[in-house]
This record gives sequence, structure tokens and C-alpha cells, in this order.
Amino acid sequence: MKISVPTHSLIESLRKVLNIVNPRSTLPVLSNVLITATKNELSLFTTDLEICITTKISADVESDGQATIPAKKFGQIVSTLSGENVTIETDSELITSISSGKALFKIMGLNPSEFPKETEFQENQTLSFNKIDFLKILKKICYSSSTDQSRIILNGILLSIREGNLTAVATDGRRLALVEKILDNQDSLIDCDVILPTKVVNELQKLLDGDGDVNIKLSDSNATFIIDNTVLTTKLIEGSYPNYRQVIPASFTNSIQLPRENFSEVLNRVSIVVNESGSSVKFSLDQDEAILEANSTEIGEANESMQVAYQGDPLSISFNPNYLKDPLKALDCDELTLRFNDEYKPVVMLGDEGFLYVIMPMRS
Amino acid sequence: MKISVPTHSLIESLRKVLNIVNPRSTLPVLSNVLITATKNELSLFTTDLEICITTKISADVESDGQATIPAKKFGQIVSTLSGENVTIETDSELITSISSGKALFKIMGLNPSEFPKETEFQENQTLSFNKIDFLKILKKICYSSSTDQSRIILNGILLSIREGNLTAVATDGRRLALVEKILDNQDSLIDCDVILPTKVVNELQKLLDGDGDVNIKLSDSNATFIIDNTVLTTKLIEGSYPNYRQVIPASFTNSIQLPRENFSEVLNRVSIVVNESGSSVKFSLDQDEAILEANSTEIGEANESMQVAYQGDPLSISFNPNYLKDPLKALDCDELTLRFNDEYKPVVMLGDEGFLYVIMPMRS
Repeated sequence: MKISVPTHSLIESLRKVLNIVNPRSTLPVLSNVLITATKNELSLFTTDLEICITTKISADVESDGQATIPAKKFGQIVSTLSGENVTIETDSELITSISSGKALFKIMGLNPSEFPKETEFQENQTLSFNKIDFLKILKKICYSSSTDQSRIILNGILLSIREGNLTAVATDGRRLALVEKILDNQDSLIDCDVILPTKVVNELQKLLDGDGDVNIKLSDSNATFIIDNTVLTTKLIEGSYPNYRQVIPASFTNSIQLPRENFSEVLNRVSIVVNESGSSVKFSLDQDEAILEANSTEIGEANESMQVAYQGDPLSISFNPNYLKDPLKALDCDELTLRFNDEYKPVVMLGDEGFLYVIMPMRS
Repeated sequence: MKISVPTHSLIESLRKVLNIVNPRSTLPVLSNVLITATKNELSLFTTDLEICITTKISADVESDGQATIPAKKFGQIVSTLSGENVTIETDSELITSISSGKALFKIMGLNPSEFPKETEFQENQTLSFNKIDFLKILKKICYSSSTDQSRIILNGILLSIREGNLTAVATDGRRLALVEKILDNQDSLIDCDVILPTKVVNELQKLLDGDGDVNIKLSDSNATFIIDNTVLTTKLIEGSYPNYRQVIPASFTNSIQLPRENFSEVLNRVSIVVNESGSSVKFSLDQDEAILEANSTEIGEANESMQVAYQGDPLSISFNPNYLKDPLKALDCDELTLRFNDEYKPVVMLGDEGFLYVIMPMRS
């Protein structure tokens, strides 16, 4: 194999495939990138056996072939090259020469035949989203997924299609975020539930930029995301997602509106005194006033009031401050709405169109 | 005590005193800031028992007094305040109220009387430097000091005054950096050697910005640095610094000039293959050519050549790449000079005026 590619294209393409590589994989070849030269194209392929990512760039191919190169070193080398183009050539000893300007690297690889094959599957259906729209859906819910390894089913996000509508959901059992969106081509869509692992959700957020669409192919056990020249295929988390609808209260006795940014600032300030203690912040409502309070036996206390339109009975609800902060950072709206019944029942936050967040109060 | 200060001044002043605070000090009061209000001034004081820092800001003082406030929390609180001014008021229970806009914090402190006193000493002499000049001296040598706790004397930098000249030196036994500078008021200066702890050198680099001078007071066991409204006092490292002059070769058989930035780039690229192995890079000279080479049994090899004016015999010298990189980052000069004898004897790097760096070759 011998090829030449523009340095900046190779840097950009490597950036897309390197994140999922586990440098301490028990299968040594998995810490490498598989590069394949065919016709006028170079493809870069990495996998952790759960997720595969392939990306393609135009290349000047002198001779076809394959090679594997240690992923982290390949990234480091290419990012420091100063020449406009990089020439990559692999010999029969599995040694790959990488040259640009006067710099020459000879890097030892492993046999490309050891590399796992790309996952292939027959999709049940195909969806398409504007990249930015899909990115926003992920950002608005992903912080709510669980990292508790004993509840694998919650270590990801649910994409649920029902009658042509998408509901994206994440929950860790103490709070839940969802976004609902009406899809195009409703008639052609089949009802289905897929659970994407958190690692995929994180990768997708890095890949989804610029104009254009992401195309998604779904089967019962796999999903593929096609973003420009990059294809990410993943295994889905198996099992049934909990019935998330049942945690959303059917009715509320009261609601208030709050300016999102100001509420976020006040919350960040007041919660400083409990940041390390894991204590709650108390959100109290009285005539046209909301007060956030926090106190810890070690540090002291803090409070700050905000003007709100509220005419109901005085009420105090205690929250984990981080559970309140997360959606405030992810939303774009100027105003958000809190709906509630009393200090024990779940509270709902609404903001951007289609967004709903449920948070359980803490017993104070 | 009750005072009011502009929020931005308090943020800026806290930034200067917070770094040296050890949050896990065995003496609890040391994780606090001592604040003292007198006349129209608020002073902030912190210490780790080796170093003391005091800084002063203009304040609207309603009543005098002192208080201690947990340093880290104080910094976090003040940095999130949105009001233009902060009001600080301490009650008889050692609780300090910090308020700005609608935000109110009540933070528990410790008794100001528990706070150690500021170190006082009688100076032998006083020096003065332009702040930026002194900052550059520190930057050009500090990376060479040792972190080996068994050689405390090398865990700092030497400031040596002889006949009106300053030599600033740092070494870890394998490389040595020094800067020589002719001082003003030569006649009034007494010969002396002081060793500043690395922590002080790091702090000074954060404090030395903007126009103006730093005034330095020295005794046998202490030093004080006066930078605008901030005063840093430190204990000196006790003992005799090694005779560093004896490691600088008296003569050289050869020398070459290299463009600093280009040499730095080439070195960064080539050394990627040995970054984790701790191996050397080989610097070879032949007719008008310098070649940097590196190889590791795990990764592979790299080489890159540079044009240089060299007419001597072919020669190869091996270096620890990090020891070569450090001064290249700290210098400002376009061209640097390497002086050498053979592959075993110390090599000297010259660049900015007054700068000299000695590096021991590695046995390859």
C-alpha cells in the first residue's frame, strides 16, 4: 500500500475515529487503526467490539492495501506534521512509513487480518434527522442516564418510535429527561424501542456538526449512524426499558415560570455551600417570591430570592442541586416552567419545545 | 467588622492569595483567609507556614475588625457574585455574612487570633527588578529544578549575587539552567546566596504581571517580594548550593547554530516514538546537516534532518528529549547555539542574553 493524503484531512478524520479506541484492550490489535486504500480513497476503521467507526477521505492511491497503526501514536504523529501532504507506505514486514516534509516515521503495526470485521446487519427501518436537531435531542437528555453498572438498561438512552413520533428518554431512577419530536415520513415508520449505549451518545455528539443530515438504520440489535463520510455502527443495549410514562404526574396543582439563566446563576451561587456535602437546596415559594436556600453544618448557609408570579400557598421543596443544574445548562429557552403538587411528589420542568424533565424532591 | 468592596477587586485579590493555601492542612485555620479591615483598606492574608502572602485593596470600611473565612469557599462564592459590590460583615459568633445583590451567604470561620502572624525579619539588602525582567529570569530556569525530596537543596532556585551581578540557577543534577544579569546600584550590593523554594518561584510567576517593579528584601533566612499591593514573604531553603560552575565545560571543540522554533518542532515530532519509553533521541551532525533520530522497540522509529552550518567531523550525541525541549519553550531567541566536545561531555546551549544551559548526554 502506498498513498498520499492532505495532512489536515487526515488529522480531521483521525479525530473522528480515535476516541473509541481502548489503548489497554486485551486484544492488542484493537488499540490500532485499520487503514485501507482502495481506488481514490483511504478508509480509517476502529472498533472496541461494541462500536465500529469508519471514515473515508479522498487520497492519491499509488497502490492498494491495508495496514494497522497504533491509534494513539498515529494521532500524535499526524497532528505534529508540518508538510502539506502525508505519504503512507506499508511494507511486507507490517511496518508503515509515514512521511511529510523531511520527517520520516517507521511504525510497527499488526497484521490487518487480525482486525475484527465491520458489524453488518439488515435494518428494519431508516430514519433521517437534521444533524443539529439530533445533536440537540441528545444534549437535552444524555446527562440523565445512569452510570450504575448494576442497571445496564439505564446506561444509555431510549429512542422510542410510536405512531410516527420519536421520544428520546434518559433516566437514572431519580430524575428523567425526555424530548418528543414528530418525525417526517410518519406512515413508513414502524413502532420500535432501541437503547443506545452512553458511549455511542457521547461519540455522536462529537460527530454531529455542520449542515446536513444524519441517516440512522435500525434493527432489533444494532444501529448505524451515517454522518457525511463517517459511519458509526453499534450494538444496542438489550432488554426492556422501564415504563417511564408512569413517573410523570398526570396533574399538577400549581406552576411557576422562571428565567432560565438567572435561575441557573442563583442556583450555582447558593449551592456552593453544599457542593461537597451532597446536601439539598431548598426552593421556597411565597407571594410573588421564590427563595433558594442551602446550608451545611461545615460551611454555613446561603440564600437568594427571585421575583416570580406566584399566588398559591407557601411551599418548600428540597432538591439535589445538581439534578436542577443539568437541564438548565442543556436548554436554550429563556423561560422555563416548574409544575408541582407538593413537597413530596415529582416536579416537572418544561422549557424547549418537546422537552420534559421529572425530578424527585429530596426529603429534607 | 463591616466593609464594602468592589466585587472585581475582591476576585482579583483573592486570586493572588489563594494558591498557597493547603486545604488539608493539619492546622485547620491555615485553610482560611485572614481578612483585616483598617481605615480604608481590606487586607487578605494566607500562609502555609513557609510562605505568607498579603494583598490589600481599597474598601469602604464601616467598622474595623478581623475574620477568617475558608479560602476555597470564599473564592468560589465571590467569583459567582453578580452584584457590583460585596458587603462583608462579621458577628461575634465568628460568622461572616457575604452579600451582593440579593445573594446572602453566612460562612463559619475560626478565631482570627489562631492565625499565625506574618513573618517579620530584618533585611540585609534590597534589590529591585522590572517585573517582566524578573519573570523572564524565573521562566528561563525554573523547569530545571529538582523534585527529588531527598535533595531539598535542589528543590528551588539559587539567586547568587557576586560583585553586583546576579546569577539565577536551577539544576536537578542532570541538567542546569542559569541566567546572569548585571544589577543596578552595584556598589551598594553585598555578595550573598539565597535559595528560593520552587513553590515560591511558581507563585511569583503568577504575581509578576503588568508594568512596574518588584522589590526584594533579603536576609540569611528569609526573602520578601513586594509587587504592587501584594507582599510575599518566604523562608529560604537552608544549606549551601552545589558549586554549579564546575559542571560548565571551560572549552568546546565545536559549535552550531539552530533556529529555535524549527528545532523545537522537529524534536517534538521525532520524540513521539519514545515519549512513553523514556529513551533518548540521537542528535547527529554531518556536513551541513543535523539529523534527529529516535527509536523504541515497541513503536518504531523516526528521523528528520535540518540544514545547519557544520564542517566538523561526524558526531552523534544522545539526549533525554525532555531536557532539550524545556529550554526551547522558555527562550525567546530566534537562533540558539549548541557547544560541545564529544558524545560524552556536557553540551551547552546558549540563546537569550545571559542564558546558559548545560545538559549531560545519555549513554546510548
